[in-house]
Amino acid sequence: MTTFKLTLAYDGTDFVGWQRQASGTSIQGLLEDALRELDGRDVTVTGAGRTDAGVHALAQVAACSLERTIDAATVARALNARLPPEVRVLASAQAPEAFHPRFDARGKTYRYRIWNAAVISPFEHRYAWHLSDPLDVRAMAEAARLLEGRHDFAAFQATGSDVKTTVREIGSSCVTSVTPAPSGEASAGRLVMYEVTGDGFLRHMVRTIAGTLVEVGRGRRPAAWAGEVLESRDRGLAGQTAPAAGLFLASVRY
Amino acid sequence: MTTFKLTLAYDGTDFVGWQRQASGTSIQGLLEDALRELDGRDVTVTGAGRTDAGVHALAQVAACSLERTIDAATVARALNARLPPEVRVLASAQAPEAFHPRFDARGKTYRYRIWNAAVISPFEHRYAWHLSDPLDVRAMAEAARLLEGRHDFAAFQATGSDVKTTVREIGSSCVTSVTPAPSGEASAGRLVMYEVTGDGFLRHMVRTIAGTLVEVGRGRRPAAWAGEVLESRDRGLAGQTAPAAGLFLASVRY
Repeated sequence: MTTFKLTLAYDGTDFVGWQRQASGTSIQGLLEDALRELDGRDVTVTGAGRTDAGVHALAQVAACSLERTIDAATVARALNARLPPEVRVLASAQAPEAFHPRFDARGKTYRYRIWNAAVISPFEHRYAWHLSDPLDVRAMAEAARLLEGRHDFAAFQATGSDVKTTVREIGSSCVTSVTPAPSGEASAGRLVMYEVTGDGFLRHMVRTIAGTLVEVGRGRRPAAWAGEVLESRDRGLAGQTAPAAGLFLASVRY
Repeated sequence: MTTFKLTLAYDGTDFVGWQRQASGTSIQGLLEDALRELDGRDVTVTGAGRTDAGVHALAQVAACSLERTIDAATVARALNARLPPEVRVLASAQAPEAFHPRFDARGKTYRYRIWNAAVISPFEHRYAWHLSDPLDVRAMAEAARLLEGRHDFAAFQATGSDVKTTVREIGSSCVTSVTPAPSGEASAGRLVMYEVTGDGFLRHMVRTIAGTLVEVGRGRRPAAWAGEVLESRDRGLAGQTAPAAGLFLASVRY
């Protein structure tokens, strides 16, 4: 048996998420189906982050063990030949047998994209949350910074979650904005990006933080309110869960 | 009757092209259907460029005349409410009654995108031609410049076309490349872009030029060969018609 570490990118728009479900197409399911063909037996794939339906990945990390003698580059090529273009293996490497993408991860970075303009580009609607009212990016950035450090993030967890601890360490939590190069008079869009790095994330945590930051950006709440929500540990006080389309698992650190 | 100039962006992937066809969904058809609802009568929409199936637009220009008294901003909002997210009205303005998007256009700019890397990103496969063999961008740029000026472009026209003249004036014809910001260790892609501005274009002209430049980029032909193809006026000598997915109508100049 040889264990492989796979680095994957996917457009999550048309999938039920990373994890195999009773119905619908999952990224894990697509990989396991392709690997079964390749290895001639059932293969289990584990991932670093269980991205939800509609969430994308720039560099998700997964692992699988194969019986067949095969080199890492061939695994990547064979998978890409079998997978739909919405899922790509960007890199493949041999890994220690005990390698576990989630338990071994030291940290992850997520990115949340907001398209802030009157009209959303047809090339962005699958990959961003469209908000037409102007956002106060400076206030959002100030609010985002209040979440850095080791905290109990219960207020930003999906209701009904059941985890041992809701304490997580957030290394950086930043909001930036970019005005893309103009492609004609008519493009007056602005991309607002939230990027967060942490040792782990609760279910819906990044999307709930994004929804909370948008409350601040819209001027409905002051930046300091994000700190109050955090301290409250009460999901009822946080902003809405931002749409899945804007969320990207950007990288996993080992 | 009031005439409106509309600036449109669309993701052409799932459409049969700009022009209404006997079957399939066209951009023109979507606009005319939405305007019929808005104006309570049949409305004809004309466009600056008849983009083919799968070709995209960043700023296509179209015109329509409405009987209803309505301001330009409301036309844009009403259309965007009725159109699918793959088609967006970016701007709308009142125009002289005689305004014709195609005949009045002084020039157009097209962009052709090539993703040059072993693996194509799932976020690029709808918007670029994937070529994994390394391209000689400098040679492609040299070949592209040979097409600038007033020439007979018959060699780059789709076979079976029937136009009065195949002479066109190309103001600029440039190849550039960009290495996108790294999003993790695994992204080693390079975007090669061909941008061409001219007073008019023949059917499949930009895609046939792109296919010809790629022959040069792959090292199968020297840069000077592009000039020989041009002079031959023989479609049989040019490169392949590059895939529609990589082509964008970038802007129209009046």
